[in-house]
Amino acid sequence: MTKLTRRTMLSGAATVAAATMTGGLSGTTVHAAAPAVGKQVPGYYRYKVGDFEVTVVTDGRTATPLPDTYVANAKKDQVNEVLASSYLPENTATHLYTPVVINTGSKLVVIDTGLGLGMFGQTKGAAGQFHSNLVASGIDPKQVDAVVISHFHGDHINGLLDAENKLAFPNAEIMVPAGEWKQWMDDSNMSKAAGTPLEGNYKNARRVFGAFGNKVTQYEDGKELVGGIKAIATPGHTPGHMSYLVSSGPRSLLVQSDITAGMAFLFVKNPDWQLMFDMDKPLAVQSRKKIYDMVIAEKIPVQGYHFPYPGLAYVEKDGNGYRIVPVGWNPTL
Amino acid sequence: MTKLTRRTMLSGAATVAAATMTGGLSGTTVHAAAPAVGKQVPGYYRYKVGDFEVTVVTDGRTATPLPDTYVANAKKDQVNEVLASSYLPENTATHLYTPVVINTGSKLVVIDTGLGLGMFGQTKGAAGQFHSNLVASGIDPKQVDAVVISHFHGDHINGLLDAENKLAFPNAEIMVPAGEWKQWMDDSNMSKAAGTPLEGNYKNARRVFGAFGNKVTQYEDGKELVGGIKAIATPGHTPGHMSYLVSSGPRSLLVQSDITAGMAFLFVKNPDWQLMFDMDKPLAVQSRKKIYDMVIAEKIPVQGYHFPYPGLAYVEKDGNGYRIVPVGWNPTL
Repeated sequence: MTKLTRRTMLSGAATVAAATMTGGLSGTTVHAAAPAVGKQVPGYYRYKVGDFEVTVVTDGRTATPLPDTYVANAKKDQVNEVLASSYLPENTATHLYTPVVINTGSKLVVIDTGLGLGMFGQTKGAAGQFHSNLVASGIDPKQVDAVVISHFHGDHINGLLDAENKLAFPNAEIMVPAGEWKQWMDDSNMSKAAGTPLEGNYKNARRVFGAFGNKVTQYEDGKELVGGIKAIATPGHTPGHMSYLVSSGPRSLLVQSDITAGMAFLFVKNPDWQLMFDMDKPLAVQSRKKIYDMVIAEKIPVQGYHFPYPGLAYVEKDGNGYRIVPVGWNPTL
Repeated sequence: MTKLTRRTMLSGAATVAAATMTGGLSGTTVHAAAPAVGKQVPGYYRYKVGDFEVTVVTDGRTATPLPDTYVANAKKDQVNEVLASSYLPENTATHLYTPVVINTGSKLVVIDTGLGLGMFGQTKGAAGQFHSNLVASGIDPKQVDAVVISHFHGDHINGLLDAENKLAFPNAEIMVPAGEWKQWMDDSNMSKAAGTPLEGNYKNARRVFGAFGNKVTQYEDGKELVGGIKAIATPGHTPGHMSYLVSSGPRSLLVQSDITAGMAFLFVKNPDWQLMFDMDKPLAVQSRKKIYDMVIAEKIPVQGYHFPYPGLAYVEKDGNGYRIVPVGWNPTL
């Protein structure tokens, strides 16, 4: 058997070049070389939870320089070590964004909306794909009954608007956590944040919700938002951050939102690590562990906004942390 | 925070029913309930290896009763234990089939072809999707220059034919391992297998290749089939079983074929386990360990025909066995 050493591979490559020049295939082909297709499959995936049809729709993936303080209580070297051992590029924050659409049979509900179009640098093709992927998946945004927002970070709310800054879901009720509204729409909170990195978030929330006259429905912990979709307060990442228990018949799903955010797998593996974007870091750690221990006890699968796409997985204990076991792809629904 | 106990979930479900009956959403919707879409995303995924464009195309997934001797040297209970701990149904053999298409820039090459159309019970919608998914991915079967076959099991060769039993890739050279041709097309071998479970495999090979007059090109270990795609003998699963080293510039990929087959993850985790379909079981174990130790040493990713879709992963040592770490989905190619 041929050894797969780098040297063999390189000498193999030399042979290849020669073979190509002399024709390569032994048969004679009469057609031109087929061009590369160059297009990825549309970014959605569908599964059932009981009678509900769930469609996960990717907004895309961004890769940006890794901040030195990405994990507040770990050294950058430690983070890079995990990235390398996960076959990911070091010194890079690779983020995925995966909104969820649930058709309960009577209501069509979107949970979170992606980075939106035309505002941030990271939306240059790599992200901002939620709306086009949604249409590719066969869902008409005009038919959406409710858009549920988990928290007011830009990668969750910006997609409420289309490229013309109009409501992307014109017939939908927009449901937002009361705690988020209180935090981010309060003028005295914004004044206190003046000149800090958080200021932009206050301004962005006003930009997005202001574009449709602040017409939202506020909801609290435990609220049944739509039949079968219940809000569960998971504060820490932001003060009013919410997750969702989706139930149909005997089947359940936890839509975790940002219980683990950013490169979520880092915080699954090291649940005590604190993401720089977690506002109340100890509380974020507490919410994370509480929910993960619950879903483990109940064997409830988790849909993660920042999990590896398509983001449906079981969570397990693994040493002092957790690990996720992706649910296998079903090619036939 | 609400507890996610089964009891709470059930009482939650009762609340849901009531809410649905009284209207659910607080807003009034004027449009009809959106119907479920009911269709899965097309079954392909695309990535680059150097300058090569790789398209993995799923043929589908089958779920059949688990034979008592599915693993020849392990008890059915042990197999069921791993299935349960992997969140998979017990007593069920869940198999995925993922042919690969590689555009090298000068040649368009298909490796293995799925279960085909119209012959086996398991092709009733669940499998036999390779050809339709290929077209959905933007690839014209008429442009395929070569079809490379790893071994002569039906789930790899049947898709050579279309629904009319004609060559599904009419302009392609069909490349087959010389060792497979020798094994399965030899009449004395077939006579010896009369009345055994293997007999069907001899007959099926004759059916498939006979449909186009046995016009194939046989290849041996180490053959550069097309520039950048080299055959590597990995015998055991069948006598002439082949894998492939794909190289473009400094990047490589191992297309493993059936080094681990069936529910491949079982044999990744327990490399000494012997799948009932492995013909020379000790040799299959030997090939598996040899190749996995090589790709680990070289950090070469593996594309697995029976891996969890889309089947691209790194292999790592894990205790006495291995584990696979799926390569993250790239939504933008």
